[in-house]
Amino acid sequence: MAGNSFGNIFRVSTFGESHGRAIGGVIDGCPSEIELDFEAIQKDLDRRKPGQSAIVTQRKEPDEVEFYSGIFEGKTTGTPIGFAIHNTNQKSKDYGHIKDSYRPSHADYVYDQKYGFRDYRGGGRSSARETASRVVAGAIAKQFLKGIEIQAFVSQVGDLGLGKHYTELDLSLTESNVVRCPDPEMAARMEEYIKSIKKEGDTIGGIITCVAKNVPIGLGEPVFDKLHAELGKAMLSINAVKGFEYGSGFEGVKMKGSEHNDQFNSDGSTKTNFSGGIQGGISNGMDIYFNVAFKPVATVIQGYETIDKEGNMVKTQGKGRHDPCVVPRAVPIVEAMTALVLADFTLMNRTIKL
Amino acid sequence: MAGNSFGNIFRVSTFGESHGRAIGGVIDGCPSEIELDFEAIQKDLDRRKPGQSAIVTQRKEPDEVEFYSGIFEGKTTGTPIGFAIHNTNQKSKDYGHIKDSYRPSHADYVYDQKYGFRDYRGGGRSSARETASRVVAGAIAKQFLKGIEIQAFVSQVGDLGLGKHYTELDLSLTESNVVRCPDPEMAARMEEYIKSIKKEGDTIGGIITCVAKNVPIGLGEPVFDKLHAELGKAMLSINAVKGFEYGSGFEGVKMKGSEHNDQFNSDGSTKTNFSGGIQGGISNGMDIYFNVAFKPVATVIQGYETIDKEGNMVKTQGKGRHDPCVVPRAVPIVEAMTALVLADFTLMNRTIKL
Amino acid sequence: MAGNSFGNIFRVSTFGESHGRAIGGVIDGCPSEIELDFEAIQKDLDRRKPGQSAIVTQRKEPDEVEFYSGIFEGKTTGTPIGFAIHNTNQKSKDYGHIKDSYRPSHADYVYDQKYGFRDYRGGGRSSARETASRVVAGAIAKQFLKGIEIQAFVSQVGDLGLGKHYTELDLSLTESNVVRCPDPEMAARMEEYIKSIKKEGDTIGGIITCVAKNVPIGLGEPVFDKLHAELGKAMLSINAVKGFEYGSGFEGVKMKGSEHNDQFNSDGSTKTNFSGGIQGGISNGMDIYFNVAFKPVATVIQGYETIDKEGNMVKTQGKGRHDPCVVPRAVPIVEAMTALVLADFTLMNRTIKL
Amino acid sequence: MAGNSFGNIFRVSTFGESHGRAIGGVIDGCPSEIELDFEAIQKDLDRRKPGQSAIVTQRKEPDEVEFYSGIFEGKTTGTPIGFAIHNTNQKSKDYGHIKDSYRPSHADYVYDQKYGFRDYRGGGRSSARETASRVVAGAIAKQFLKGIEIQAFVSQVGDLGLGKHYTELDLSLTESNVVRCPDPEMAARMEEYIKSIKKEGDTIGGIITCVAKNVPIGLGEPVFDKLHAELGKAMLSINAVKGFEYGSGFEGVKMKGSEHNDQFNSDGSTKTNFSGGIQGGISNGMDIYFNVAFKPVATVIQGYETIDKEGNMVKTQGKGRHDPCVVPRAVPIVEAMTALVLADFTLMNRTIKL
Repeated sequence: MAGNSFGNIFRVSTFGESHGRAIGGVIDGCPSEIELDFEAIQKDLDRRKPGQSAIVTQRKEPDEVEFYSGIFEGKTTGTPIGFAIHNTNQKSKDYGHIKDSYRPSHADYVYDQKYGFRDYRGGGRSSARETASRVVAGAIAKQFLKGIEIQAFVSQVGDLGLGKHYTELDLSLTESNVVRCPDPEMAARMEEYIKSIKKEGDTIGGIITCVAKNVPIGLGEPVFDKLHAELGKAMLSINAVKGFEYGSGFEGVKMKGSEHNDQFNSDGSTKTNFSGGIQGGISNGMDIYFNVAFKPVATVIQGYETIDKEGNMVKTQGKGRHDPCVVPRAVPIVEAMTALVLADFTLMNRTIKL
Repeated sequence: MAGNSFGNIFRVSTFGESHGRAIGGVIDGCPSEIELDFEAIQKDLDRRKPGQSAIVTQRKEPDEVEFYSGIFEGKTTGTPIGFAIHNTNQKSKDYGHIKDSYRPSHADYVYDQKYGFRDYRGGGRSSARETASRVVAGAIAKQFLKGIEIQAFVSQVGDLGLGKHYTELDLSLTESNVVRCPDPEMAARMEEYIKSIKKEGDTIGGIITCVAKNVPIGLGEPVFDKLHAELGKAMLSINAVKGFEYGSGFEGVKMKGSEHNDQFNSDGSTKTNFSGGIQGGISNGMDIYFNVAFKPVATVIQGYETIDKEGNMVKTQGKGRHDPCVVPRAVPIVEAMTALVLADFTLMNRTIKL
Repeated sequence: MAGNSFGNIFRVSTFGESHGRAIGGVIDGCPSEIELDFEAIQKDLDRRKPGQSAIVTQRKEPDEVEFYSGIFEGKTTGTPIGFAIHNTNQKSKDYGHIKDSYRPSHADYVYDQKYGFRDYRGGGRSSARETASRVVAGAIAKQFLKGIEIQAFVSQVGDLGLGKHYTELDLSLTESNVVRCPDPEMAARMEEYIKSIKKEGDTIGGIITCVAKNVPIGLGEPVFDKLHAELGKAMLSINAVKGFEYGSGFEGVKMKGSEHNDQFNSDGSTKTNFSGGIQGGISNGMDIYFNVAFKPVATVIQGYETIDKEGNMVKTQGKGRHDPCVVPRAVPIVEAMTALVLADFTLMNRTIKL
Repeated sequence: MAGNSFGNIFRVSTFGESHGRAIGGVIDGCPSEIELDFEAIQKDLDRRKPGQSAIVTQRKEPDEVEFYSGIFEGKTTGTPIGFAIHNTNQKSKDYGHIKDSYRPSHADYVYDQKYGFRDYRGGGRSSARETASRVVAGAIAKQFLKGIEIQAFVSQVGDLGLGKHYTELDLSLTESNVVRCPDPEMAARMEEYIKSIKKEGDTIGGIITCVAKNVPIGLGEPVFDKLHAELGKAMLSINAVKGFEYGSGFEGVKMKGSEHNDQFNSDGSTKTNFSGGIQGGISNGMDIYFNVAFKPVATVIQGYETIDKEGNMVKTQGKGRHDPCVVPRAVPIVEAMTALVLADFTLMNRTIKL
């Protein structure tokens, strides 16, 4: 209800503020008997963590997860998996300047209006630090979803777009560069661009594309909980996301039905895939693919004018250690949320026939 | 769970197939003491109903709603509002041709795969006829949300885009034409275009833009249930929707943070509104606006090849009476879903402070 | 949230007031491919309906259910089952006397306090008429639960208690008399007693015992959603219920652990069954049995003093046609709610292992 | 869904096994701006903790709670409150004897059947140790519910019952003795009795009565989520509970309506309170009171025969440090669950009127 849980059957609830004692969560409804690969979980956390390259924030957080329950002799028990990541690098003094003033396009102002006051340190609950808990839960969901491959990658940074359909790319190259773009040449250009943006003390947006392969037919519920509706909600719930499209997406509006319709092969697969692997809200066995648009991070290391709690205009400047472009670190988050959606629908799908 | 309910506190559950006896729903959690304007409800239904103009499907359905409960002496009682719309014009014979074969880019195939069999008449549960129930619930939600103005309009049909920000338009003109585009000149071009598409026996996609004004500060829950995440899910749950973006949307990815940030005025409003009225998932009092992309309707009145249940290739042809372009009739649906999201968060917001 | 839905996966939402146009509901999450026996559904409705014998209310309601959706060619489709029972015998004038005054131990007063006003006719939403919708849903749940036998019966009326464990009774005799007590001799005494109570214009309470046989091992979730906790909630949600106990129940508190523990047989069954078929909240394969206590119906056909809306004391008298003892008609309701609980946990149980 | 969360708006999710690294939980939906009294939280934990007197288990657990989030400068922030209690006294070796065999009337057998395997140490998730997390959440709920007084006490141990209505007792004496019975004389007898039971290596059941005063009119939702139905579920979800009754309870079945009806005073209060403060599922402003029946603890320190995983009969003996009677330590758990129910309905009640 209060918005800190995701999923119905495979359900994760997260807690934690950027500069509190710990962040973490509870995964309820994870089936028993999954043999966990803890290294794989940590690896996803490392792909998200700050300080991993020169183009991301230089904060240092080890982001080591401690599991408290729900696992016995290396396997899930079917009982809730409680976990925490302790915050070790809380430079709260970096945030004194925002205690009494509101950063533009941040959640500072609306939190104060909504709740009466806020934990202002590092953005508190509105910080993207919360997504580390999602990555933990998503990494476990991935292990449950054995056989399904979920691969996200950066397809655009600012104006620099790949301009290629995912089927033209070698996705195995995604992790070969710090931008997480599977086209090495474009990745190099993007990296240079992000560095120049960083030097300006500014930030830039980008797009992540995600592909899920080998998704069985039948996932997703008709009407309100369509597979792409839940994927859309999942993506839009990630910090800084402004848009979501799947399959033909916004470009599809320009097409005629006679072009856009995916004709069947005799095995039920389709010759084209404008549907993005989903028809009527239900997976059809073809690749699922979608784009997620991220705005430029709001924290810029430049002087700006804003208001304080009393509505006075004050001059201030972004401080702290922030990402010039959020998409490289958001790749594992997009994958994690995709895995959570697919895990939930996979379990739900076991209940629909006599 | 099975996906036929929407909302947490203000919650609607719908039922009904295209060619069953009736469609309808239950609205639970609607506050008591709302004096209902039944004409306004019917008016929204009429904006959605088939046969209302030459550019929409010529099926004739009166779409009259019967209320069974939850209303006494013209006012809501706080108990569930049960309602039904009887199906009166069920030309089931129109659909005999799809009983044993699967229409491309329709839900026919995945329903059979998921549930083992399906009510094939008129698409059954996957038909957009279900959205009439949403319009009923949304019309009641609108009456609860007195003061908030929700206005949706067609901003693009095929390649024909308005190319204007909503602030440059006179939205009061939206209902002055059958396309529901507030620019009369563009509306006329769109209408011509849809007619030509119809003549071809083809279909075309489009975009609906929606604006919500006077939304109080504080709606939306942080983390998973962000206001724009729920709006996105709501829109993506509408038949034929392929994408959602709010505020700066996909264009925002090309902007720098220093441009994109919405600077504050001293009263807490902002000088620009790239945020689309939502920061950190919470309404900030500025106009909320977003775009919804609709694909071309899958049913084309042209010959095509497809597969039957045994996987044999069969030649067939679209029949029945279908919309050449779905967006004119989808405008009230977009508004209804927006109202449902805002009603739910309005109630939720009463619970967050001591 | 507003309390008109029950179940998580197999979920029923009901609507309707005693004297409104119709009552009914939506069953969401019912699996597909269940071949429905409509006579069995009507039979359960008939066991609950008024006017069936001399010891129940003499109102005449045919209680015929109309199904609107979710069923095709006699089988469930997996989509929501909408249904309604139209109210045909609405003697609203019988209730004019309660429009402005509050009947003692009825919900009249608290409804006005909670919602600001109420549909006073026949108790409105607080009437036990609502339970007809539960019987419909429960009858469908029973058909899903093929193999599990759910049998409820009257075990006490006022002071007249069976004083026998269910294992000493021939439950096939339950429907052989109007009281629904499987001991014919005691049934006759109960019937006489209820008639005498009716003659006095008074009412009396009673106890229903319910037994569920052949329940597979493993139903119920640990911690908050224990099988007996959901059964208890289900029973306590029935009008006039004051208490619930399962297995050894309240008598069990007097026993020592060494007596109360159910020793195992080598096949996992137990020699005794003080546990009532549930250990740690999970079914263990033994018979589940529990008792449900019903208070005397509040409406007595006697003069009494009460208050009106302004707090004035007024003299009034019970009118209308009411049950002198609610338990004979409540037997199918207890069974229906039991079936709903078991159906929901049966589906949930499919999701808990890899 | 998987049963480890309780409440809709004020919602707690717990995690943790008896002998895992930590137990804990997440409280979501707790309103902001509650000034927390941490000593009061710890005091309730201390009332529940083992080792507090000679008549409870002699395990030593400090049960100190660490809060990770959702609290800033001593006040709740409206964001989720994550917390953990580390397990410090894990004598796992005490439980080696149950690794491969099933204790009678314990959850060992059904867990293995349901999940395929189990964390057998100390009963794992089925241990009442989990209730410490409930006490934390309930203690916070109590602080939100300022003004409402919730007082539970032991009213029966084995055959020793108080035989008095709560209104005849001085509840302020409850904490004056280790049994938590407000009648000092009876408390002494109960204490002696429990000691004798302990000496026998046996266990005994009991009853806890709970009273909630100053509950505002209007809490509880009609139909499925009646106030007493949620209270019943809450109580039945506590380990070892076998029954629940409120107001007149099981005794009420013997009364006539003319006796049982609570006649109104002119201010809306009632002359009697057989209703137990709840009419039609909604609080009426009178005291709420109910009884909760606890069976004797299953672990007896006596030799017994049971089965192992292969179904072989084996002789074994209860070990570890267990409670001879669970009710003294369960008093704060009953209060905690009551507080959680009332907090949730208090928030829900803010949403029901225009």
